[in-house]
Amino acid sequence: MNTIDAATSFAKKAAAAVPVQRDDARWVALSRVKGLGCVSFKKLAAHFIDPTQAFSASAAELAEVPQLDHDVIDALLKFSHWDEVSEELRRAERAGARIVLFSDPNYPERLRMISDPPPFLYVKGEFKASDEKAVAIVGSRSASDYGRRVARDLCRGLASIGFTVVSGMALGIDGVAHDSALNAGGRTIAVLGCGVDRAYPPDHGKLYHRICEKGAVVSELPIGTRPMSYHFPARNRLISGLSLGVVVVEATEKSGSLITATLALEQGREVFAVPGEVGSSRSRGAHRLIRQGAKLVESVDDIIEEIAPQLLPRRGDVAKETRQLPENASDGARKVFGLLQERALQIDEVIEASGFTPPRVSEILLELELQGYLRQLPGKRYIAER
Amino acid sequence: MNTIDAATSFAKKAAAAVPVQRDDARWVALSRVKGLGCVSFKKLAAHFIDPTQAFSASAAELAEVPQLDHDVIDALLKFSHWDEVSEELRRAERAGARIVLFSDPNYPERLRMISDPPPFLYVKGEFKASDEKAVAIVGSRSASDYGRRVARDLCRGLASIGFTVVSGMALGIDGVAHDSALNAGGRTIAVLGCGVDRAYPPDHGKLYHRICEKGAVVSELPIGTRPMSYHFPARNRLISGLSLGVVVVEATEKSGSLITATLALEQGREVFAVPGEVGSSRSRGAHRLIRQGAKLVESVDDIIEEIAPQLLPRRGDVAKETRQLPENASDGARKVFGLLQERALQIDEVIEASGFTPPRVSEILLELELQGYLRQLPGKRYIAER
Repeated sequence: MNTIDAATSFAKKAAAAVPVQRDDARWVALSRVKGLGCVSFKKLAAHFIDPTQAFSASAAELAEVPQLDHDVIDALLKFSHWDEVSEELRRAERAGARIVLFSDPNYPERLRMISDPPPFLYVKGEFKASDEKAVAIVGSRSASDYGRRVARDLCRGLASIGFTVVSGMALGIDGVAHDSALNAGGRTIAVLGCGVDRAYPPDHGKLYHRICEKGAVVSELPIGTRPMSYHFPARNRLISGLSLGVVVVEATEKSGSLITATLALEQGREVFAVPGEVGSSRSRGAHRLIRQGAKLVESVDDIIEEIAPQLLPRRGDVAKETRQLPENASDGARKVFGLLQERALQIDEVIEASGFTPPRVSEILLELELQGYLRQLPGKRYIAER
Repeated sequence: MNTIDAATSFAKKAAAAVPVQRDDARWVALSRVKGLGCVSFKKLAAHFIDPTQAFSASAAELAEVPQLDHDVIDALLKFSHWDEVSEELRRAERAGARIVLFSDPNYPERLRMISDPPPFLYVKGEFKASDEKAVAIVGSRSASDYGRRVARDLCRGLASIGFTVVSGMALGIDGVAHDSALNAGGRTIAVLGCGVDRAYPPDHGKLYHRICEKGAVVSELPIGTRPMSYHFPARNRLISGLSLGVVVVEATEKSGSLITATLALEQGREVFAVPGEVGSSRSRGAHRLIRQGAKLVESVDDIIEEIAPQLLPRRGDVAKETRQLPENASDGARKVFGLLQERALQIDEVIEASGFTPPRVSEILLELELQGYLRQLPGKRYIAER
């Protein structure tokens, strides 16, 4: 492009009045550029201090953005749907939704790190700094009483130690998750697969309003977007993207929760699954995840141990490194356990070192072994468990 | 030792009439030598072609056995309890038990490999070559209906494909395991923590006789030995030692089954555990094992996949390597799946390559993803699961 062309291009841009658009308008406009998805967006965000500078950039400048598609450059240069953008902003305002830009300090830090973060989020309610400590709880729409109970207990527990519960506001486990977190006075974030203005599913109308008030309802989809099944996989990446880890409570083998789990792994987030009875189809997905390496979860501690182990000692759940016998352990058990903490001994050596009779030593050893305080090594030697 | 001493020693040995003892008498005698346990036995077995040659060896010859304890050498040289040995052999005969020596081709090959194999086993019933394909099923004495049902299903399944079920004949899961294997026409081995002549626990009297007839009841303990709790850990090493893997069906956190699992790991055997509901104390031990790396088991296939994967294809459970769509899959799904088996594609590329409309492609992709046939990669690309 020669100097005169560049000057002409600049004049055209000025004529399109891009600079006078509001900040959020320019971002919403980016999402309306044909072919410009989250990946192209990331390229722009990496190249320009403000990715919406793309609108005022020349073709030559856009060509310098590494690996930016030619079609996207064309579409950026030709973009003119500013009236649609203004309409979208008015709709968001009417719906009481704010637009949180990728550049906004309020944009969730963890979501910013995924490979395809949305350029902006529609939010009803608000993000808080404490939402950085977030765990997703997801599961079957047709949950069993068992699944509901476990989800409730986990969410209560997470809320009670200041964790935000993230889920998808679906029927079943998702709904229980949001509800339990709120009931425990905690924070919760619902990520929708439709416009943030839609209280979907209808049965969750009341829950939707409670979350808007006490937490945040979030979507990357335009205001008014209807819930279509093909939105859900993309939505699920936001659920895991907002969270330190994803807990799958009940999931059939075809459950969307398994997609969330897969996305979580790709994002480097922890995956947890709650076991259930063999033969229950609702647990099959969770069992598959566990076989594939997801951590089996029985309690909140199992989650915290993985994502925030530093929180555990504070909670009085003292280190597993030096094992302590229970308070009611006999003096004999203490003596033997003490000997075996130093080194592995054969039973005869324990008898000699302790001065106890062989039957007494046998009994103490068995008792300690059954309680998991010591174990046998090859050669019939015993050693204390750490 | 000079030549005259050696000659005298030889004369003494001859006087003790060791050479005229029956084979099994000499092995039983070894087990009665003070301080001579399974580990010293292994040293003798490694040094002499026949470890009972130790009885006719001189002090100098015994001193050549690597790392053999001095006290054991002394005890071997002084051993004279041949009358006790004869009495033990008569007792075994009266009990209808045969003695299977470590040197016997019938001695289970897998048990021979552990670090502390018994020099001989008392056996009622018999070992068969097919017992090489053995899996241990162990669990809680106070099993739930759920645990019993799972144990039964697994044992039936194992028996139906020619696996021998090994267990400890205890109340609860152990009993169900033996019983179910026999009912399915299969083989089962019970390893006792008392003399092989004792049908313990009494409630399992009938089961004991059925196992003697159709399988094998086994113990390393002298005839008539009473069931003492401190025998059980040592007994458990035989349960895992006889097996390719150990499946823990239900186990509290203090269960002896967890010891069997630990021993199995030390012996290089696979450990499996059956999950249950969170909150059931009977599943806590199994869940702990799974968190520590035991494989979660829902069905016999989960066991076979680990210990004998070559058996799976024969059973029609065809390879997981090249995934096949179900027969009722649409032509559209087949076309899209075929494209994504070759390489990862973005949705637009799938639309172009397939010639289908965008909504149709979206629907097919979602369906396939939910069914686990494909997954999303970063950059909204899709690829077929293998």
